[in-house]
Amino acid sequence: MNKLDASARGVYLITVTPFTDDGALDLQSTDRMVDFYLEAGVTGLTVLGIMGEATKLTADESQVFVKRVLDRVGGKVPVVVGASAPGFAPMRELTAKVMDIGAAGVMVAPAHTLRSDEQIVGYFEMVGETLGADVPWVLQDHPVSTGVAMSTSVIKRIIEKVPSCVMLKHEDCPGLAKLSALRSASDRGELRRVSILTGNGGGLFLPEELGRGADGAMTGFAYPEMMVEVCRAYSNVDVERAHDIFDAYLPLARYEQQPGIGLAVRKQILADRGVIASSAVRKPGPKLSAADKADIQRLTERQNRRLAAIN
Amino acid sequence: MNKLDASARGVYLITVTPFTDDGALDLQSTDRMVDFYLEAGVTGLTVLGIMGEATKLTADESQVFVKRVLDRVGGKVPVVVGASAPGFAPMRELTAKVMDIGAAGVMVAPAHTLRSDEQIVGYFEMVGETLGADVPWVLQDHPVSTGVAMSTSVIKRIIEKVPSCVMLKHEDCPGLAKLSALRSASDRGELRRVSILTGNGGGLFLPEELGRGADGAMTGFAYPEMMVEVCRAYSNVDVERAHDIFDAYLPLARYEQQPGIGLAVRKQILADRGVIASSAVRKPGPKLSAADKADIQRLTERQNRRLAAIN
Amino acid sequence: MNKLDASARGVYLITVTPFTDDGALDLQSTDRMVDFYLEAGVTGLTVLGIMGEATKLTADESQVFVKRVLDRVGGKVPVVVGASAPGFAPMRELTAKVMDIGAAGVMVAPAHTLRSDEQIVGYFEMVGETLGADVPWVLQDHPVSTGVAMSTSVIKRIIEKVPSCVMLKHEDCPGLAKLSALRSASDRGELRRVSILTGNGGGLFLPEELGRGADGAMTGFAYPEMMVEVCRAYSNVDVERAHDIFDAYLPLARYEQQPGIGLAVRKQILADRGVIASSAVRKPGPKLSAADKADIQRLTERQNRRLAAIN
Amino acid sequence: MNKLDASARGVYLITVTPFTDDGALDLQSTDRMVDFYLEAGVTGLTVLGIMGEATKLTADESQVFVKRVLDRVGGKVPVVVGASAPGFAPMRELTAKVMDIGAAGVMVAPAHTLRSDEQIVGYFEMVGETLGADVPWVLQDHPVSTGVAMSTSVIKRIIEKVPSCVMLKHEDCPGLAKLSALRSASDRGELRRVSILTGNGGGLFLPEELGRGADGAMTGFAYPEMMVEVCRAYSNVDVERAHDIFDAYLPLARYEQQPGIGLAVRKQILADRGVIASSAVRKPGPKLSAADKADIQRLTERQNRRLAAIN
Repeated sequence: MNKLDASARGVYLITVTPFTDDGALDLQSTDRMVDFYLEAGVTGLTVLGIMGEATKLTADESQVFVKRVLDRVGGKVPVVVGASAPGFAPMRELTAKVMDIGAAGVMVAPAHTLRSDEQIVGYFEMVGETLGADVPWVLQDHPVSTGVAMSTSVIKRIIEKVPSCVMLKHEDCPGLAKLSALRSASDRGELRRVSILTGNGGGLFLPEELGRGADGAMTGFAYPEMMVEVCRAYSNVDVERAHDIFDAYLPLARYEQQPGIGLAVRKQILADRGVIASSAVRKPGPKLSAADKADIQRLTERQNRRLAAIN
Repeated sequence: MNKLDASARGVYLITVTPFTDDGALDLQSTDRMVDFYLEAGVTGLTVLGIMGEATKLTADESQVFVKRVLDRVGGKVPVVVGASAPGFAPMRELTAKVMDIGAAGVMVAPAHTLRSDEQIVGYFEMVGETLGADVPWVLQDHPVSTGVAMSTSVIKRIIEKVPSCVMLKHEDCPGLAKLSALRSASDRGELRRVSILTGNGGGLFLPEELGRGADGAMTGFAYPEMMVEVCRAYSNVDVERAHDIFDAYLPLARYEQQPGIGLAVRKQILADRGVIASSAVRKPGPKLSAADKADIQRLTERQNRRLAAIN
Repeated sequence: MNKLDASARGVYLITVTPFTDDGALDLQSTDRMVDFYLEAGVTGLTVLGIMGEATKLTADESQVFVKRVLDRVGGKVPVVVGASAPGFAPMRELTAKVMDIGAAGVMVAPAHTLRSDEQIVGYFEMVGETLGADVPWVLQDHPVSTGVAMSTSVIKRIIEKVPSCVMLKHEDCPGLAKLSALRSASDRGELRRVSILTGNGGGLFLPEELGRGADGAMTGFAYPEMMVEVCRAYSNVDVERAHDIFDAYLPLARYEQQPGIGLAVRKQILADRGVIASSAVRKPGPKLSAADKADIQRLTERQNRRLAAIN
Repeated sequence: MNKLDASARGVYLITVTPFTDDGALDLQSTDRMVDFYLEAGVTGLTVLGIMGEATKLTADESQVFVKRVLDRVGGKVPVVVGASAPGFAPMRELTAKVMDIGAAGVMVAPAHTLRSDEQIVGYFEMVGETLGADVPWVLQDHPVSTGVAMSTSVIKRIIEKVPSCVMLKHEDCPGLAKLSALRSASDRGELRRVSILTGNGGGLFLPEELGRGADGAMTGFAYPEMMVEVCRAYSNVDVERAHDIFDAYLPLARYEQQPGIGLAVRKQILADRGVIASSAVRKPGPKLSAADKADIQRLTERQNRRLAAIN
């Protein structure tokens, strides 16, 4: 299996973690989900992210789930594993285990206690040492969940100081200006070029982010074909087509981005599509009401009509 | 001028505060802006909100601006004034002044130091005493800006304990479940019915919120006609039409909701539409790049084509 | 081994986790540390707390460390294990393992995402179910680290709804009023009486908290004899003596409470006292400077003189 | 009246704002308070700080209070005025008014929305422009109240870029290392020397901070003589004497630092000492219980005995 590198492009789909109705890991659904994502044309997968309910799994369950995904993927696309942890010992341990069974790299977000630029850069230097020079990793910039703001200059310093950082998962908002600044710095040769995949709001700014030089998306909207097709249209320099596709999915993508219940919406859609057997989110987690499900149904029907009209 | 009461419906537009390029209050643009909003069919105005750059005005400027808006409105619609303040003395002073010159009521968000339910309820009891029993006020539930989470039961207790609270500005996310719970409580006669206007994300969930019983919107998207027409379609029980209109504006509405630069986008659109003379945001505040403006232009053109198609 | 119950009193010492200079678990120091605490007269131990660097341990290391402590304690005093976790599956797993090898109970703090009273009470009802009715647990109220404010009424509701909650670890500030309110509620028979041990600022308000009805302390100041003797003097109704002892240790206790470097100060003192072999804090963590160590030395010498004067 | 400059030393006492029992400004108590502080030997005063309930005053009240203090001080010591504000227009207005009537300078904390180093430095460059080159100002580093972490390098950049910044009010925790780093940078000639006064926890680390090179204290403990005498002993290179004095006051100083009720404790002590007529804190604010007052009385009596013993 090839490791992740800075040439990564396209859609790295952030997977959910399927559970049965009573909260057990659902490995059959895991297989079906992997097949579904691969058929949608994703170029990579990311597991054990925030939307993968990573912190709700036991250490053993994490191992079992990652192994199942890697086995099913069978080397067809690279698989990135979320490895953020409050301490370096658990981060090192998880990383060693998943790299050993075929992960392409790991993803690390800053610890929520970090504040100043110096602290943040120092933290990721230690991350680089902890993971080891041969483990490529993704820098996750997601201030909404971490509370840590990383400025353009901080990200540049991390990229300069830690060669094993090969990708930025860009989820800051406002983010378009940051994206432009980072991309133009590497275009001018002032900064090592890393891959930049965006995740803002489940892809809610995807066309604009591609316009600023993003290499693709790393997010988990329950219609991965949206991201795949928007990226493809953009690659074909058909920007209006990219927006047409994006706009057709936007009402539902927006609905899936409601803080608090977003993951439940995503799992409901995936269950409705037959991808996973149960929409269950592990406790503590939200449940959808009948009204929520009716909203999803209406938006899905409208989306289908809209897609029919533009294709 | 009639005071605000619990029967308020429709669109209470949150106005910007227009400045000249060099940062002075622009009163000519203020007049034009008021006319523009009234012509769009709004049923009320809200000034000195977060998006009105209230905290960047001196006390004198606040007075001048509110008076100018009230004079121009001339009693045609009620005007609500943001009166949140860290202390009750400034809140009382501002409220007395604006009520004296014709405001219909004020709006108050919780102080950012409040945490427990008891503290929050106690705070708003003091707010009620501070404003006086004859000043109707709007409870602003906006955890993203205040950091204060108000549960359904807290809001119920405030409504029960403070009769001068006549409206909820609902901006919590997740919010649909809270909206359903509040509305059904008053439908069952268990809770005094107050007006509920929603502001979530500049109206990004407006159709669904109307579906849960909201009486309209209190937000400031630069196309007020969107909110007016969606509310009208909903009133006419033409839900699909409401969604059609909403969807046409959604890509630009979403772009206007970028944290950090959203207000600059809103003012740019209003300036592009000829409503205000300058898109300037007072310092400290963001500026748009050429790429941001190009994004706005593309989205505006696409929006125009889409609107032509559905009308 | 008896399980923890609501009659617990005295000093439950929060242990550090000893490491060697290169960051490995130091089990010899662990034994010595247990002996030291027992000789100081503590009535219980708490391991894997925030000051125990719990999140920096791998799952295996946690098991090894807890087992070593339990073996060394040999049933002489109850041992509480910190079991806070973002998800219930890892919380259940850790709890089952440590109860199986002889822990007296576990301690759980609220998840940092909780905000409203309803959410907090609901969370701890699920905690009670997750742990099982036969596992006694300590409710940790530590808003500085969790960001969650629990009012007196929330704590009462948790105590009422979850019978397996037998102790409150009280670390809120302002906390004296809350302590008075909880204790008087149980004195009046309105609330089941649980044990209340305080941890505020490493015990920086210990005499006043005992005065309000606390049953003792659960904290980790490097001079456990201070807490033991202050509690004893208070039991003997010799309040001025309790303050005399407290005041003698206060300058150093205060120094140990510096946010950010406090744990490094604590471990330095324990190393200076010969309790643990190395003062190392696991990465990411602070290091003391020569000036910090000189401060500690001066304060220790002054403390020795002061203790000599009052004894 | 001389303006504030970088040579400032000693104790700049942060005043409370006295109110009558019914919440009105108490100008007689203001006079008495000023006299009390001057007699205690302070070298400066700071008004309208966080502990001065600045945000609870109307704009007019702020003016009246500052003028009263300045008139009573009569130029004997410099007076610094807190001028932090969410917007630059109110900051400029307040600064112009108070400098016009004789203030020595103003104090500004970072806006709570700032996160990255770039944002913070940029903000204070705008502060410098807003105030004008001839207005000396104090940089307030108080992350507990602002939520903004300023690293040593950020503070250095602000000092380098904004010449009108003449003082740092140092209230970060951990802060001793930062203090050492800043002071050694100016000692080595690498950084313009500014005055550094410390406020940590109401002076709870004063002797250690003087040991790291602080020029004095800016804080408001109700016994200003403690800070004055500790600074004097340190100037006389009598470090043990400085600690003896400090230790005598520490139990009460610690009690005054309880988050939430600290200001009420401070005002109670000042009222007990006859400095201000009423201990009232303006709403929203805390009230002391009988038990709180008994604690204060006991600690005061113990303090008196201890002071008698060391003098």
